[in-house]
Amino acid sequence: MGSNSFGQIFCITTWGEAHGKAVGVGIDGGPAGSELSEEAINVQLAKRAPGRHPLTSPRKEPDQAELLSGVFEGQTTGAPISILIPNRDVDSSKYEPIKHLLRPGHANDTYLKKYGIFDYRGGGRSSARETACRVAAGAVAKKFLLQFGIRPQAVLKEVGGEQDYVELLKQVQEEGDSLGGVVEVTVPQLPKGLGEPIYHKMEALLAQAMLSMPASKGFEMGAGFRAALMRGSEHNDSFVDQTTNHAGGTLGGLTNGRPLVFRVAFKPTASIVKPQQTKTIDGKDAVLKLPPGSRHDPCVAIRAVPVVEAMTALVLADCLLLDRCSINQY
Amino acid sequence: MGSNSFGQIFCITTWGEAHGKAVGVGIDGGPAGSELSEEAINVQLAKRAPGRHPLTSPRKEPDQAELLSGVFEGQTTGAPISILIPNRDVDSSKYEPIKHLLRPGHANDTYLKKYGIFDYRGGGRSSARETACRVAAGAVAKKFLLQFGIRPQAVLKEVGGEQDYVELLKQVQEEGDSLGGVVEVTVPQLPKGLGEPIYHKMEALLAQAMLSMPASKGFEMGAGFRAALMRGSEHNDSFVDQTTNHAGGTLGGLTNGRPLVFRVAFKPTASIVKPQQTKTIDGKDAVLKLPPGSRHDPCVAIRAVPVVEAMTALVLADCLLLDRCSINQY
Amino acid sequence: MGSNSFGQIFCITTWGEAHGKAVGVGIDGGPAGSELSEEAINVQLAKRAPGRHPLTSPRKEPDQAELLSGVFEGQTTGAPISILIPNRDVDSSKYEPIKHLLRPGHANDTYLKKYGIFDYRGGGRSSARETACRVAAGAVAKKFLLQFGIRPQAVLKEVGGEQDYVELLKQVQEEGDSLGGVVEVTVPQLPKGLGEPIYHKMEALLAQAMLSMPASKGFEMGAGFRAALMRGSEHNDSFVDQTTNHAGGTLGGLTNGRPLVFRVAFKPTASIVKPQQTKTIDGKDAVLKLPPGSRHDPCVAIRAVPVVEAMTALVLADCLLLDRCSINQY
Amino acid sequence: MGSNSFGQIFCITTWGEAHGKAVGVGIDGGPAGSELSEEAINVQLAKRAPGRHPLTSPRKEPDQAELLSGVFEGQTTGAPISILIPNRDVDSSKYEPIKHLLRPGHANDTYLKKYGIFDYRGGGRSSARETACRVAAGAVAKKFLLQFGIRPQAVLKEVGGEQDYVELLKQVQEEGDSLGGVVEVTVPQLPKGLGEPIYHKMEALLAQAMLSMPASKGFEMGAGFRAALMRGSEHNDSFVDQTTNHAGGTLGGLTNGRPLVFRVAFKPTASIVKPQQTKTIDGKDAVLKLPPGSRHDPCVAIRAVPVVEAMTALVLADCLLLDRCSINQY
Repeated sequence: MGSNSFGQIFCITTWGEAHGKAVGVGIDGGPAGSELSEEAINVQLAKRAPGRHPLTSPRKEPDQAELLSGVFEGQTTGAPISILIPNRDVDSSKYEPIKHLLRPGHANDTYLKKYGIFDYRGGGRSSARETACRVAAGAVAKKFLLQFGIRPQAVLKEVGGEQDYVELLKQVQEEGDSLGGVVEVTVPQLPKGLGEPIYHKMEALLAQAMLSMPASKGFEMGAGFRAALMRGSEHNDSFVDQTTNHAGGTLGGLTNGRPLVFRVAFKPTASIVKPQQTKTIDGKDAVLKLPPGSRHDPCVAIRAVPVVEAMTALVLADCLLLDRCSINQY
Repeated sequence: MGSNSFGQIFCITTWGEAHGKAVGVGIDGGPAGSELSEEAINVQLAKRAPGRHPLTSPRKEPDQAELLSGVFEGQTTGAPISILIPNRDVDSSKYEPIKHLLRPGHANDTYLKKYGIFDYRGGGRSSARETACRVAAGAVAKKFLLQFGIRPQAVLKEVGGEQDYVELLKQVQEEGDSLGGVVEVTVPQLPKGLGEPIYHKMEALLAQAMLSMPASKGFEMGAGFRAALMRGSEHNDSFVDQTTNHAGGTLGGLTNGRPLVFRVAFKPTASIVKPQQTKTIDGKDAVLKLPPGSRHDPCVAIRAVPVVEAMTALVLADCLLLDRCSINQY
Repeated sequence: MGSNSFGQIFCITTWGEAHGKAVGVGIDGGPAGSELSEEAINVQLAKRAPGRHPLTSPRKEPDQAELLSGVFEGQTTGAPISILIPNRDVDSSKYEPIKHLLRPGHANDTYLKKYGIFDYRGGGRSSARETACRVAAGAVAKKFLLQFGIRPQAVLKEVGGEQDYVELLKQVQEEGDSLGGVVEVTVPQLPKGLGEPIYHKMEALLAQAMLSMPASKGFEMGAGFRAALMRGSEHNDSFVDQTTNHAGGTLGGLTNGRPLVFRVAFKPTASIVKPQQTKTIDGKDAVLKLPPGSRHDPCVAIRAVPVVEAMTALVLADCLLLDRCSINQY
Repeated sequence: MGSNSFGQIFCITTWGEAHGKAVGVGIDGGPAGSELSEEAINVQLAKRAPGRHPLTSPRKEPDQAELLSGVFEGQTTGAPISILIPNRDVDSSKYEPIKHLLRPGHANDTYLKKYGIFDYRGGGRSSARETACRVAAGAVAKKFLLQFGIRPQAVLKEVGGEQDYVELLKQVQEEGDSLGGVVEVTVPQLPKGLGEPIYHKMEALLAQAMLSMPASKGFEMGAGFRAALMRGSEHNDSFVDQTTNHAGGTLGGLTNGRPLVFRVAFKPTASIVKPQQTKTIDGKDAVLKLPPGSRHDPCVAIRAVPVVEAMTALVLADCLLLDRCSINQY
């Protein structure tokens, strides 16, 4: 499996660059018989789309998905589902003046080293535009999960350390700077036993899923890093008093019947308006000054919320299918 | 790939239960031409073995690996390497009295639900004994990495929130309780460009690796969760002043030439001597009181250190091989 | 990996139904730095396209590929390559009258059983139209292989048992019937050692690749089934006299420096104009009489030639990349 | 997944060299709740063991499997199953005199080229001894299949072109030569719909499985290569008259309810007593004369029968599990 794929049974593969003709995603292994429409995908895409909120990037992407395969008479057929999202509001000219600069917090240096070539326009393949494809695929996973009453819910927990952050964010944006944030996921109702032992534990798959997102820097289940400060007698969730959930909903890597709870930390947006001292690709001193009208989010965590939710849905859909293979008779 | 396997090219598969005849690991896809001996494996296993320290479990496992295949005249041949570690100091009788009890923080409930059967002796497959296999496989990966000058180093960063924790740990152990801890990894010298884009980002693979360990509850790269509190102008590592490493050594999921730095949070040991109210498998009230002489670590993070280091080596070995496929001519 | 994917490093995934909006293929894991253009893909697609020859289906598909990602300034970037081939000459109305009939030699019965739903239009996902995607992906693999001087060559060896078959084929077509055929592949120059031991032997991967093609029924390497009639002293290719190639170019599953030679058997086209007694989906007696103007090839082996060649290229590209991971230093 | 692994859900990995301490196999992903014992494995191993028949190799291997994990109280637990088969009757001294010779029909030349090192003793990893592991794993798959009434049956169809071949074989053996053969498999009762579309068609997986066996040179389904000589009106199996099975039991790559029927061609044993002109590794002329007492089978197809049956069972077990993921509700 290539590195642009995720999932063992319910397996997605994304493609496309920020300023190419389109981005897209294929879903292979999804079960037949789920309802699916372009509308259902677009509803999810709208949650992530830029330009809908004063505090997100002004790039205007209608993000209308085209559903090219895998559906017949409104139902999935078990055939691979191909979803294409055209890139419409693309303006690569702004990237020309900075194409020779190493961009702090960005991937152009490392991609160039690895591949010897880099599509620098809008960040190319390393752009967060790829996450639109995750949301589209997540819409399909959610449709499947809904049949089992499973609804992952992601919320923006804090921005810049604050739970009430709108004023702070506006101010930082005016300063040409950016903020980090934390997203929290809860999945209230899950069957017991989802996840696979050892290397495919539920938390291991979720951690991979979350750290595969651009700008994510941390993952914790339940009490998470606070668990490292606790005693066993305090951390152990009791089978009698079921009010605690320090484990975050798994034991031995399998869901234990309590809500799945985890958090993801996002770094502040790397693209900032403030000028930054840097180097050119050739190693000369330079200043990176984003051109006027550069479009960026002051806090990537805001638009990451539906992406986190989508990735959670993808992990759960895959685990739900794999779980069917656990015992000799189904 | 089954859930007991890890790695795409340098791929390990572990097997074995805590109280079975042996545990073991197969390594498939490792390159030919690395030196390897049982001795090299046993040196690593000794770092993890119980019974060597007053603050770890008194279970005495000599942990002498048998190297059964894949090596000829002291060199790896490219054939699969099979390593077997006999279980010697096994006493299952202590588990009989508690086999019908749900154990807080343990996997017996979830495994039973998933599989309808559970080898409860010593925790069976869910036991941390499986991590001996990771260390053995990690020894092979380390041998390979050494040829490229790569040396992952894991240290115990804190226990119960303290960096100087010995007295605290003794006291908690006397109380029949346990503590959590944090392990930190540094890999000082790495080629640029390791890791694969999107779903196999270096941090995504490391996160999966770390969260696949028993008792691990959190993972963070570089500044990690603190990044969520920073501004972009502060977090961005400069290409001019190379003294910071907030990113933890990757950009766009690929190593950027600075040291790889990440931390893993471990919950306190779930097995505690203090009696715990619980339920039987049939749902009746019960008290879990570990039998006298029960063997457990007061802080799993201590013995997790070599396991974290081994998992890091496995991720890096795999990425180093995969990176050979990035460009058209090598 | 889903069942619509093929290859471990150089990994393709195809999608699309015969009468959907388009078919397409994604390529993930191909190396950066190969030249690639839509033109190069279309040249290969033209070899397979219907309607170019009196003895192939009159369906007119211009088969103009759109190259949507993974290429920058004419070079592959290492990012996933997405190729879309619109379905233009689609007429589903002819399938309406026969949609309730079990079609001998076709997949509608088995797909319906497996998935509970079937896109019957033009055979939906089970149509040989999917093979256009293989040819498009094969074009990319060929570009990569060419840099190493590797050129797989497939030829139509016989049709209906005849090497000179044009008259026979015309006659059979007039009778409303169809013929089988055999395609042979030769790859004249290959490095030694390609392929991977045991389950990914060169011949095992080729066999999977070939038997994954619609209508293929057999695969043989070198002397193939004739080898079963030979003695060891006759079959063993000598290291002294290098004129024989009974093995077909591999030993122990790895290329041995002689040309790779294998053959693939194709059954006669299942769609025939002659009326056939059959059943409806509900089990009632019926006659399948293809509607006037039905489009089919009298011998699928003819258009299979470029597909066989493409699949060979895909296997070789993947093996060439994997081979880079065989030894400790490259 | 490494090249020593086979299967997507029910996944085996074999290891070990002909003259190492042991060979073995791990099975990961097999379902919980199947009965399993060492005895059940040894019964299958006995079918393949050498030294039981005047016409097979006189190497005496008791082939007593040790079942090291994955079974508790006689039942599989869903944990990985590890099976170890010690190599007992090993005599490497006979290989010393010929270790510098290129052996016609053998893998030492290609392995050396690929890996730079080769364990030549008994053929090392390339030895057919590896197939004992397939039979052991196949025993586990068969136990699982039996619960669904599925029984793959392999028979030796012909040797040297003869169906009554004992005298011919004796004579050829006396001449120091060897013969090829054909094995045929029938699986009488199978659910419809097993196999996965496109690249994991039932016949594609079987073809890979069969061509991964040492000495196999061809694979054909149903009418196979004869299909290339037939007309569509003859080859199409009727849904009305169900007496024919030209397709061999699949349509569109999925089982169609008729018996699965396929054949595998094996080349004559490459190891022959007759002296052969060859080269040394350094390219000098030499004669390969197997030392007195060399042990080989005059026809590998004989002992291949249980291996072919085992590989069939492994493919079917995997497909049976994967099929559970085809639809939205199970």
